[in-house]
Amino acid sequence: MVEIHAKPGDSVRIRLAKREIDGILLESPDSSVVLLKVESGYNIGIAKENVLALRILKKYIEPVLPSLPLPSQNLPAIGLVITGGTIASKLDAKTGGVKPLTSVQEFTRFYPELFQLARVKAIENPFMILSESMSSEHWITIAQCVKKLLDDPEIQGVIVMHGTDTLHYTGAALSFFLKNLNKPVVLTYAQRSIDRASSDARLNLQCAVQMALSECAEVVLVGHANLDDEYCQALRATKVRKMHSSRRDAFQPINTDALAHVWPDKITFYGTYRKRHSGMCELDDAFSDTTALVKFYPGQHPDILDFYALKYKGIVLEMTGLGHVAASDSAQNWIPSLKKHIKNGLIVCGAAQTLYGRLDPLVYSNGRDLAETGIIFLEDMLPETALVKLGWVLGHYGWKKHVREKMLSNIAGEFGERLVA
Amino acid sequence: MVEIHAKPGDSVRIRLAKREIDGILLESPDSSVVLLKVESGYNIGIAKENVLALRILKKYIEPVLPSLPLPSQNLPAIGLVITGGTIASKLDAKTGGVKPLTSVQEFTRFYPELFQLARVKAIENPFMILSESMSSEHWITIAQCVKKLLDDPEIQGVIVMHGTDTLHYTGAALSFFLKNLNKPVVLTYAQRSIDRASSDARLNLQCAVQMALSECAEVVLVGHANLDDEYCQALRATKVRKMHSSRRDAFQPINTDALAHVWPDKITFYGTYRKRHSGMCELDDAFSDTTALVKFYPGQHPDILDFYALKYKGIVLEMTGLGHVAASDSAQNWIPSLKKHIKNGLIVCGAAQTLYGRLDPLVYSNGRDLAETGIIFLEDMLPETALVKLGWVLGHYGWKKHVREKMLSNIAGEFGERLVA
Repeated sequence: MVEIHAKPGDSVRIRLAKREIDGILLESPDSSVVLLKVESGYNIGIAKENVLALRILKKYIEPVLPSLPLPSQNLPAIGLVITGGTIASKLDAKTGGVKPLTSVQEFTRFYPELFQLARVKAIENPFMILSESMSSEHWITIAQCVKKLLDDPEIQGVIVMHGTDTLHYTGAALSFFLKNLNKPVVLTYAQRSIDRASSDARLNLQCAVQMALSECAEVVLVGHANLDDEYCQALRATKVRKMHSSRRDAFQPINTDALAHVWPDKITFYGTYRKRHSGMCELDDAFSDTTALVKFYPGQHPDILDFYALKYKGIVLEMTGLGHVAASDSAQNWIPSLKKHIKNGLIVCGAAQTLYGRLDPLVYSNGRDLAETGIIFLEDMLPETALVKLGWVLGHYGWKKHVREKMLSNIAGEFGERLVA
Repeated sequence: MVEIHAKPGDSVRIRLAKREIDGILLESPDSSVVLLKVESGYNIGIAKENVLALRILKKYIEPVLPSLPLPSQNLPAIGLVITGGTIASKLDAKTGGVKPLTSVQEFTRFYPELFQLARVKAIENPFMILSESMSSEHWITIAQCVKKLLDDPEIQGVIVMHGTDTLHYTGAALSFFLKNLNKPVVLTYAQRSIDRASSDARLNLQCAVQMALSECAEVVLVGHANLDDEYCQALRATKVRKMHSSRRDAFQPINTDALAHVWPDKITFYGTYRKRHSGMCELDDAFSDTTALVKFYPGQHPDILDFYALKYKGIVLEMTGLGHVAASDSAQNWIPSLKKHIKNGLIVCGAAQTLYGRLDPLVYSNGRDLAETGIIFLEDMLPETALVKLGWVLGHYGWKKHVREKMLSNIAGEFGERLVA
């Protein structure tokens, strides 16, 4: 068996019986397996006994960071909120994983380009976590940081750097929390950490700056428009979803089009958007965590509703097709259980598990029966946006009798155009 | 206020202050609202007081069906399984809803083209239900019907006509239940009922016949490839999902490409597929209903696992990103709860809620912690396919100690190609 003389972090070429593989050698938890990070970004494991030869292409050297450039006083000012995620992480060459940038200082050194496009007047760094671990307290904290930066008259726009996993939830939350928004609030991300050759972080951040300095006073998500490293798309944060686990264009607009295409030096807008104004933004971050998201599947027992009705005030039900769950022609008829719980006060909102398209429960007889239970059918609103909005609506005690009306009002672009006269 | 002199079912033109709308007048549950089905298929409601004028474009006449053509004895034989859904429904002109075709006789009259392409030797019609009401008993019954038809040496292939809402679940079930498949099994559907001008049923069914007579012995779904009424795509049933609530090309391949493009008179295959053979298909429909699908969302309390662990043997968890849930950097850390329940015997499989892409939990530290809990990460398998497969695996008592191995084996094309040496 060949001896593995390379060290974790080294670029190596491995020869197998039928082909060669290039990659970065990782620390392997299993001594009989050689672990490689390949250019596509995946880790692959190869049984050591299959390795015929290993050649070091390049020894690993801890990268030397450029010194921090002095921000120019003549550039327009922006504010940054750094929350963690890959865009604020670097590769750990030994494990092949990524670890957070530990200081704002380190962060500014990783993104020198940013400091040539705008003057970063203030940085808020309330926490450093991966976005799958966020919850509503984090959304509220981020909104408070954004509000603080927006209130600075010098700051033209705010960029929020965030993990990708639940970025669309945070975007929806900021869309509802920031009332009368006066300047751009731009969420951005990276799917691959900044010290990897294939990183998407630089372009995303450069385009985010363009957007933050634009006339568009909306909460938008800016990220790669495709697999090329040329331009980004700006997406309204209530109508976007992470649609791929690893691609740099993971975020896609759902039931709408991109609001703009953004290059590092220009923007092309499509359609209408809310304009920058001189008023003040208000923070409206009342929120109730007594909500849940339930995805219906065939054969599912309606007793899941009993579980949620015990502790929760409202649920978003991901329904099939035009807005269905198992009905009277099924052994697991959901209609009596829905009727009972809704009558007893549980708010049940319906969203489409197809993601694309609009609910229209009146087309089929099952849907018409369901409409009579009191479900609030949320048209073309995304289930993720619906969950955030429901928590926000239920967080307002004064809206207790107006939940249906509030859920069906278009507050932050969460509904697309409807065919109603 | 204008008098509405038209009858439900009539095609009408309504004049409002600023525009005119054409559509089919429907019975309205609210006498102050005029309900119209417009060409896009949506129902719209208009306050009667806004209607300035109404003109009848065409009176409704109950359609006269052509008489049933005699099947030609020279055509190749196929078998049909009719289960309900829009493809076996007709428009109820009065309510604007659709109702099931009540007899097989009526069905054959609606699809005369079918009987010119193939000889329908046998029809199985075990039930007529909308697919949101199906559960595993229905999948088993459908599989038994298909098996019976496949066993007829004259029959070249089988077509299953099914509602769209959960068609992809049934397709996955048939893919696992039908072992050593010897002939094509083709699922098809309609998004709009056959008596509507915009119906997609005819093309889907004609292309399904082409596929059923082809060399491809796989379970595939055949339906519109785009919004034009020109050709269909054939999709492997374990890697397909309903991705739009109403478009005719609602079904899209996920993490793979179409297996073939199909016209009413020809097929072009892409890639490799299992070939028709003279052996016998075996039915392996052991199934356990003790499984559930849980979609993780930010802030979700892990006590949902306690609920499922009480009654269920296994769950499929729709995880964020590369395979994450809230971990040790969260107030709602799921890791201790996952560890406890998995140790006590609960099977937890992970699938991607992004739908597109592949899980790779070893990239981030949270993922590596999660991998240690014993979650079975299902790579690029769809959550819906995973739920069906887990029920099927757990239904086999003899596989009790091999659940991980079975879940990670590629049995019916549920995994795409992996980058593993």
